[in-house]
This record gives sequence, C-alpha cells and structure tokens, in this order.
Amino acid sequence: MEQLPKRAANYVPLSPVGFLPRANAVYGDRTSLVYGRRVRFTWSQTHDRCRRLASSLLALGVRKNDVVSVLAPNVPAMYEMHFAVPMAGAVLNTVNTRLDAKAVAAILRHSEAKLFFVDYEYVRLASDALQLLVSDGASQVPLVAVIDDLDRPTGVRLGELEYEGLVSRGDPTVQLPMLADEWDAVTLNYTSGTTSAPKGVVYSHRGAYLSTTSLLMSWEMGAEPVYLWTLPMFHCNGWTFTWGVAARGGVNVCIRDARAADVYGAIARHGVTHMCCAPVVFNILLEGAAATSAPNQRQLAAPVHVLTGGAPPPAALLERVERIGFHVTHAYGLTEATGPALACEWRAQWDHLPVSDRARLKARQGVSVLSLADADVINEDTMSSVQRDGKALGEIVLRGSSVMKGYLKNPEANEAAFKGGWFMTGDVGVVHPDGYIEIKDRSKDVIISGGENICSKEVEEALFAHPAVADAAVVAMPHPHWGETPCAFVVPRKKEDGDQNVQVCEEEVVDFCRKRMARFMVPRKVVLCEALPRNALGKVEKVKLRDAARKLQPAPAQKTTTSNSKGSTKAPAGKSGGGRRDEQNPVAHVMAMSRL
Amino acid sequence: MEQLPKRAANYVPLSPVGFLPRANAVYGDRTSLVYGRRVRFTWSQTHDRCRRLASSLLALGVRKNDVVSVLAPNVPAMYEMHFAVPMAGAVLNTVNTRLDAKAVAAILRHSEAKLFFVDYEYVRLASDALQLLVSDGASQVPLVAVIDDLDRPTGVRLGELEYEGLVSRGDPTVQLPMLADEWDAVTLNYTSGTTSAPKGVVYSHRGAYLSTTSLLMSWEMGAEPVYLWTLPMFHCNGWTFTWGVAARGGVNVCIRDARAADVYGAIARHGVTHMCCAPVVFNILLEGAAATSAPNQRQLAAPVHVLTGGAPPPAALLERVERIGFHVTHAYGLTEATGPALACEWRAQWDHLPVSDRARLKARQGVSVLSLADADVINEDTMSSVQRDGKALGEIVLRGSSVMKGYLKNPEANEAAFKGGWFMTGDVGVVHPDGYIEIKDRSKDVIISGGENICSKEVEEALFAHPAVADAAVVAMPHPHWGETPCAFVVPRKKEDGDQNVQVCEEEVVDFCRKRMARFMVPRKVVLCEALPRNALGKVEKVKLRDAARKLQPAPAQKTTTSNSKGSTKAPAGKSGGGRRDEQNPVAHVMAMSRL
Repeated sequence: MEQLPKRAANYVPLSPVGFLPRANAVYGDRTSLVYGRRVRFTWSQTHDRCRRLASSLLALGVRKNDVVSVLAPNVPAMYEMHFAVPMAGAVLNTVNTRLDAKAVAAILRHSEAKLFFVDYEYVRLASDALQLLVSDGASQVPLVAVIDDLDRPTGVRLGELEYEGLVSRGDPTVQLPMLADEWDAVTLNYTSGTTSAPKGVVYSHRGAYLSTTSLLMSWEMGAEPVYLWTLPMFHCNGWTFTWGVAARGGVNVCIRDARAADVYGAIARHGVTHMCCAPVVFNILLEGAAATSAPNQRQLAAPVHVLTGGAPPPAALLERVERIGFHVTHAYGLTEATGPALACEWRAQWDHLPVSDRARLKARQGVSVLSLADADVINEDTMSSVQRDGKALGEIVLRGSSVMKGYLKNPEANEAAFKGGWFMTGDVGVVHPDGYIEIKDRSKDVIISGGENICSKEVEEALFAHPAVADAAVVAMPHPHWGETPCAFVVPRKKEDGDQNVQVCEEEVVDFCRKRMARFMVPRKVVLCEALPRNALGKVEKVKLRDAARKLQPAPAQKTTTSNSKGSTKAPAGKSGGGRRDEQNPVAHVMAMSRL
Repeated sequence: MEQLPKRAANYVPLSPVGFLPRANAVYGDRTSLVYGRRVRFTWSQTHDRCRRLASSLLALGVRKNDVVSVLAPNVPAMYEMHFAVPMAGAVLNTVNTRLDAKAVAAILRHSEAKLFFVDYEYVRLASDALQLLVSDGASQVPLVAVIDDLDRPTGVRLGELEYEGLVSRGDPTVQLPMLADEWDAVTLNYTSGTTSAPKGVVYSHRGAYLSTTSLLMSWEMGAEPVYLWTLPMFHCNGWTFTWGVAARGGVNVCIRDARAADVYGAIARHGVTHMCCAPVVFNILLEGAAATSAPNQRQLAAPVHVLTGGAPPPAALLERVERIGFHVTHAYGLTEATGPALACEWRAQWDHLPVSDRARLKARQGVSVLSLADADVINEDTMSSVQRDGKALGEIVLRGSSVMKGYLKNPEANEAAFKGGWFMTGDVGVVHPDGYIEIKDRSKDVIISGGENICSKEVEEALFAHPAVADAAVVAMPHPHWGETPCAFVVPRKKEDGDQNVQVCEEEVVDFCRKRMARFMVPRKVVLCEALPRNALGKVEKVKLRDAARKLQPAPAQKTTTSNSKGSTKAPAGKSGGGRRDEQNPVAHVMAMSRL
C-alpha cells in the first residue's frame, strides 16, 4: 500500500497560480478583465501578458524567493502581478496604499524587495519612501518600475522601468521555473509596517490554493462571475479572489476607488454579480444610492452578492443595503488566515425569522471554511474548548493548511502566534450551541477602521515618543462610519520637580501622531488621565479601556441613547481628536474601580 | 523566506475524513442521513457512530494500511464506513455488488482484506466468494461481519460479527490514530477483478480531499443539499460525494436500489436536491414517470440537480428528463481519476441556442475540474497536444493531485498508465476550439454498460479458455437501454487435421461466459468470423470492430434507420447473445477490407 511513489502525473504542487494556464486552456476566449473605457482582455490575453511580464522579471534578474513589491490600487497591473510574479518564482508583496512613506519604507526594508512597482498616482509616496530608505542607509534599495494608467496613459515616470514596456518586451515562450514545493512562498502581506519588528505574513502556494477554493465554496461563487474589485487587492490578495476569479473563468472589473459612482456605474455597465468589501463601504453605497436621482440606482437590476468582513455588519446597515439588492454574506478573517477563516453560512430555517433575529444571526462570524481543519474558542489558560453556550468567553483559534507559513524574520511574533497546535487569533469570542462562533471582543492589539487594520502597539509607540507622555494605551472606539477608530488614553509625565503634570493638550498629541503615521491610524480621540488600569501583573486592562471608549464614541447621524447613568462624554462626531477633558468621564470611573 | 517551518497549526494533512468532525462541530444538530421509514441520524450521531466503529476496528486488530472490504448497497453502514475505516488508519475497499463470486474472491485475495463487511442481501455471494478463497488455499481469509438491515432487521448472520454490535460496543472516546501523511491510502477501488492481475486503484487522502472539493465546485453544490444515493457508493466512493455531503452538512438519503418508485418516493418525501447516476438511470426515471398515474411524479415539485457520467447522455433522453425537472450536468471520469475529471461547464451564452445544439454541447465531456493541473488530448506517438479544432484525434490525458496513487501491486499496469508526466486514460477524443474536450472513441479496453465498467480483456480471457476458440476480441456495441454492451468477435479453432473449423455456436459461447463472469459482463452478441483485423504489428484493430459492432446494435424501441448500404445485420433487441450468423454481415465486410 505504501509502495506507490509520487509521480509527475499524480502529485502536482498545489498553487493558485495554476488557475491561469487552466483559464487560458478552457476559458481562453472569455473576458478576463475590464478597466476604464478601453481596457478589455480575454483569459488568453491575460495569460500571455503574465507570461511576458514573468519573463521580463527573470530578465531583470529576479530569482526564486525574491520579493517584488507593488504599491497600486485595483488596476490591471495589480491583478496580473498576482500571477506573473510567482510565475517567475518570486514572492509578491502588495503594499497598502493608505500607509505613509515611513511605513512603506519599513516594508521595503524588511522585505528586502528587489523590485518595486508603483502606480503613477503613488509616485510621490514611493519617492518619499525610497528617499527614507536611502537616507537610512538601507543595504537594499529596490529597482523601481512605474505603472502608468492603462486606460489613459499619463506619462508619469519614476526611474527607467515602466510596466507596459516590461509586458510588451517580454517573451511569452520563455520557459518559466516549475514550482517544486507547494510550501514555497507565494505572497507576503504586511499587517503592520512601521514598528521595529514589522509583521510580514507569508503565504505558501498550498495555503493560497486551499484558501482560494475554500472561499469559492463558502461563498458559493459559481460559473462566470462578474467580480467588482471594491476590496483592495492588497488586503490578503483580495481575500484570494485575485486567484478565485481565474479559477471560475470570471470577469475582473477593475476600478481605482470604491466610490459610489464607480461602483454603481460598473454594476450597471458590466452586470456585476459579486463584490467584497468592509462594512464601511455599505455607507458609501447607501449614500450613493440616496444621492442619485436615477431610480435604477436605488434598486439594483439584478442581485449583487457581497462578501463582507473586518467587522460585523450592523443590523440596520445590513437591512438597508439588502433592500437595494445586495445579498450580504458575512465572513471573519485575518491576514494570517489568508483572508476569511469563518463564514456565516446561512441556514434555510432562518429565512422565516423576524428581520432583527436574522440580522443578529448574520452578524455572527460563523463556521470554519473547508480549508481549515478546525476552528475553536479556547480558554487561554487551560487551552481547552469553552462551553458551547454562547456565553463562555475564550480566544478564537484556528488550525489548517490555509493558515500562514508564519511572520517573516520575526521569531518572537511566531512564537506568540502559534501555541499548542493552534494559531491564536487574539480575538475573544463565544461558541453558540449551533456551532457558530461569535466575536465578543476584538483582539487586544487590533483596531479595524474602515476595513484597515491598525496595530494599537504601533500607535502607542508613537505616543511614547512624545516628551510629555508617561504612559499610553490605544484601543478601539466604535464609530458610526468607520466601524472603529483609535482612541488613545494618555498619562502625562510628572514634572521633574514635583507632583504637577507636564503641560500637554489633546490637540498637540493628535498633531504629533499625524506627523508620524498614516492618517487612518491617528487617534480620533485622546483621553488624558491620571493612570491606566492595570492588573496584578502590571498589564494594561484594555477591556476596561474599550468599555470606556465605547461610551465616548461619536454620536451617529441619527439620535442615539447612551445608557450609562452618570458622566458620559460624547465626543463631537467626525472631529478628529476633538474630545474634551471631563473630570466626570467614564474613564475616570473605570480608573477608580481599578484602584479599589 | 524558506526558513518558516511547517507547524501543527498551518500544515494539516489534507483528508476528506476531516469533513466529519467539522460537520459534527458546525452542523451537529442537522440531519446527516435518512434511510427507510425509521432511520434518521444527525451529524453528531453519525460522528459518534463512526468513532465507535473505528474503535471497534482497532479492537479487532485492524491496523494502518489494512484493507477493510465491504459488499453492500447504499445503506447507512456503507456510508459510515467511508469515515470509520480510514479513521482507524485502514483502507476502505468497496466491492461492486454486481460481480460474481469469482471476482469478489479475486478482490479479497488481491487486496489481502483483513475484514469483510457483507450486507445481509449479499451473504450468499460473499459465502461463495469466501469458499473459493479457502478452496484456493488463500494465505489470508478475512474476518467477516454481516450488515443487517438497520430499518428492518432480518436476523441474517454470517459468522460472529455484526455491524450494529460493533458500533454499539465501540467507544467514541478512544484516541484514534492521527493522519501523518496525506499521501497515505484512504480507499481501494477495483476497476476489474477477475483477471490474474486485478486493477485495484488506490486513492490517497490528499487526492480524495481535492477531488471532493473540486466536484463540489464543478457541480456548484451549495449549502444544505439533500443528496439521494442513486449512484452506488462502490463507484469511486460515490464520485466522492460520500465525503462531499459531509463537507456541505447535507442530508444523505440512502436507498437500496435506484428503482423508479424509490427514487420518486425519496424526492417527494425528503425534498431531494441532488443525485448522481449513469445515463441508464434516466430510462428508469422516464419509465417510472410514465408508469405512474400521479401527476406530481410526471413533473418534479422542485428541480433536482443530476450529475451524470460514464457515457454521454443521448440528446433525446436529456431533453425528456430535463422536461420532468431534472437539471443535468454531464461529467467525464474514471476510477483512476477519483471520479469525474472533466465537467461540461455550462455557458450562459448557450442558453438561447436551439435545443439540438444545446444537447450537442452538453454531451461533450467538458473542461478539467479544479483539482487537476491539466487535461489534454495528445498524439500518442509524439506526446504533443493535438490541434484544438474539434477534429484531430488523440488520447485524453490527465495530470493533477486527484489522479490515483496507482494500481495496487501491479507495476505493469502502472507503467502503462503513467507516461511522460501524464495519466493516460486510454480514451480517444478531440479538443474543440473553445477548449472543451469530447470523447470520440471509448478506450480500447473498456465497455461501459449501465454505468458498470467492463474490461474487454477479462471477457476475452474467458473466451480464450473455451476449447473451440482460436482468437477473440471484445468491443462495445451501442445499446438503447444500457448505453453499451459487450460484443464478442470469435475465430473458431481449426480442426487439427485440416481446414475445417471446430464446431461451435454463439449460444454455447454465451453460456460458457455466463458460468465464468458476472451477468453484466456476458457478451450480448457473439460474432463468429474467419479472422480478426490486425495491423502491421499484429495488434487487433478494435476501431474497425467497434464500427462493425455499431452496425449490429439492437434496434431501439423506436424505429431507427441504419445508414450502411449493404449487408447490415440487426440483432433482435434485448435478446442476450441472440445474434444470428450472417455471411453478409458488416464484420465480414470489415475483415475483407483489412485483408486487402
């Protein structure tokens, strides 16, 4: 039984990149990608273009395991690089376009990128990052290639190389390296990039293949999808649908920004069937639908399936977007799990429940996708499963071949993340009696704002750099538009000679942060306080701070009621960092408790 | 990049068996299986029962890589063994219930089965097989356990062991062996069993996992399917849907036979959504629909998705079953490819074609499923792809991790099957310009009758054992009900002293075969001839024989026209072996040509 050897015909390394040659063979004449007014490719053309680019990468000296970085929105080049870069044996590193130059430089440095593709809109950001890299004396500065707009070329250049030139000069007949080991790296995605120990998440070909097919199943994406690129491809490689659309021979509708006009325009023009987005995009869709006078934009001609994640979609929002014609599936994931890891699989028996019950059920994170061997909620101390009663809290843990290979060059983070045969998500949740997992408390360290992960530690590090800050902690504060925004609790430094605090105000702290991090990471609220609540081991009790921040959240457009009995402070909505100091605020109350 | 090690949390061996613990965790309260009037289990119960059985297998001394055989129709035990046997580390071998005792004995001997589960209806067949095994002095005779009917126990026994006893006495808390290597064998399926070198196809856990998920995608089987077991589970483990239904948390509707009354009854009672079958079952469904007076059985209340394979569904048949409410998807596969390897993915653009064009397109075998890295049609001599023109003939070849590990203890067959990095299907086909593959000529060696594979070589070997047979070849003859039936071309032996043939008639040859093989394998037509057409290398030109057999096919119920101009012979429909000798028959004509 054991003596049957692996052969070339029955053991082929799993890779999502293989979906492209298959699409060329079986969907060759079908549309692969549309962009702007003039760009339309077939799967045969996309295959040809990717092979050409891969050959050019080889000609430039790119080799196995070299990192090729890209800073671009959802343009055709960004899509093609998901195939072309690994076809050359290299590792694709997509960089979040919302980062600042310092963070981009940190990623280029840490990843040791050999080549850096930059969309023409981000040439300034890239130049700044490269300058930082050079001025810091980095050992490796990447070759740079600009990606001009394919629909309306601008002529913007940065260095010698240009994407379309590399494609057109490439040779599609060049023999590309064969993938020998499915454990080889395919992409590298940074979850945070500005600290001294950036967390670069490495995906294997195997994990990416399994996650791709698994998500096609969880979302039930059938044949001939028309997929709109509202979700940035730099988020977990577009939750793997970069590869998934090729597997299905679908149409990629590329757009630069998820603006309401572009989204509704693409839906109408191309017959979009599927899209992914963070719940924050629902607001944009609703505002867009309301703003337009054209009635066909208030009700979609055909249903559009939306996979959402990053934060549970609020029930009211869910109801409103579904009324327009968006069918929402809720998933939970993280970069480390190659995108969605749990999906809230709908059950037919729930169809007839009242709308509020349905929204409550749909807001749960759900059940493990098929690529995972297991997902559970465990007691961190005993490492055993919590009761499946919807009440017992524990940490959500995952196990399976779609979990990342690990963090690049960060053994400490790897040791913390992998424990007892599990990947520890850091998120706190419960298991309901029906097996569905629900998050009860976000990870201690992550704030998700408009679909972007913010590492609270990074913001804290910046705060500690301020001369007047003695102690600081950053947690998530609910926000009606962004889902969450960072809220900073800052303890001012005592004057050297006495009991008095150093003079510092909230606006100053916010300004200080603005100069040191991307805009979306800047705390929208800074609370000055006497001390942070700490447990017996001296660890900041972030649960208490999150409770406090919840009561400080900006008021939504509609009237809200705040239930805490005394001393609640409402920060003015939308005004960044505009909280005012209040002796009676709930933080002070929390602190008092922790001092008992 | 390379230094990230595999960990328990991010490298879990792929196995379809893992879908059961997942189903227990996330679909635990949902129905897993129904059978008869009284049997209904949830996924938690199925999980518990499988763990119990696995523990009992361990207690009986079953160890890693031991073969556990089962001879049973689609009853609950047959389903459960697809999980319980590999959970004990053993290899499941499902035996075709249509075989004769000799073939069953050959399988038990070749597989060295340690344990043999026998459904109460097949106790006689099993006893005969075991007796043959003993009388042949086999070194290994398996322990036997009977499977009584779970809905209505009969009390039939064979030996000491009984399935339900093993389940109830099992301990669901016993630690079961962990799968360490996904290349380990999970099941063993014989494609033919009576020859001296049986072909036992070994599946790995990896291949079975990938094939299972791949077929869920190709067929677009979504959440909560209600799957009717019309296709025998002993065919490629039910084309992997044994495991696939668990992956989807669906309901398995088990029935003993695919009789029209049972099929329509199950559809009405359980709301069946999916079923698989060979096209021959369409006849049963149509007859059943016509025979009943209840109008609700002439038109299904809700559509039922049917995956069919084994032979292309004839256009007229397709149209008629679709009119009742069956939505047919056509797939092509073989045991060696873990079931379907190509699926005829429908394209929306074909929806508006005339019905005859649609039927022609749907009868094509289609495009590779996602578990395959590639499928192609190649020139056997040059091993290069044929033109994609729908005309150039070549051999259909496959490559990917869902291709079998190989044939058990049969290096010769393995060498023949794996060539140049491909698995050679033996089937001849073309590639159309749109990339869809179509079979033009079945394999030289395989006849598919009512969904059962018949190895022509096995029938030929039996024929050669007849003292009056000098030469023989068996090919497929089209049949209106069974799709194909075997047609034998036999050259009688010359008398020792001269030019005259030994006396032999067709009926005698048929009778001779009846005693030596399962009924479905017996040639339905025997043609006595002077010589077989052979090429320069002395190889029988089966293409010519198939052409000849095509002209000999039994007339269908409706009137047919035969286009050959002279000397066509129509065998009386349905009369086994009843062809009459005809000096003017087209075989003689073919032979004359080959003699030029």
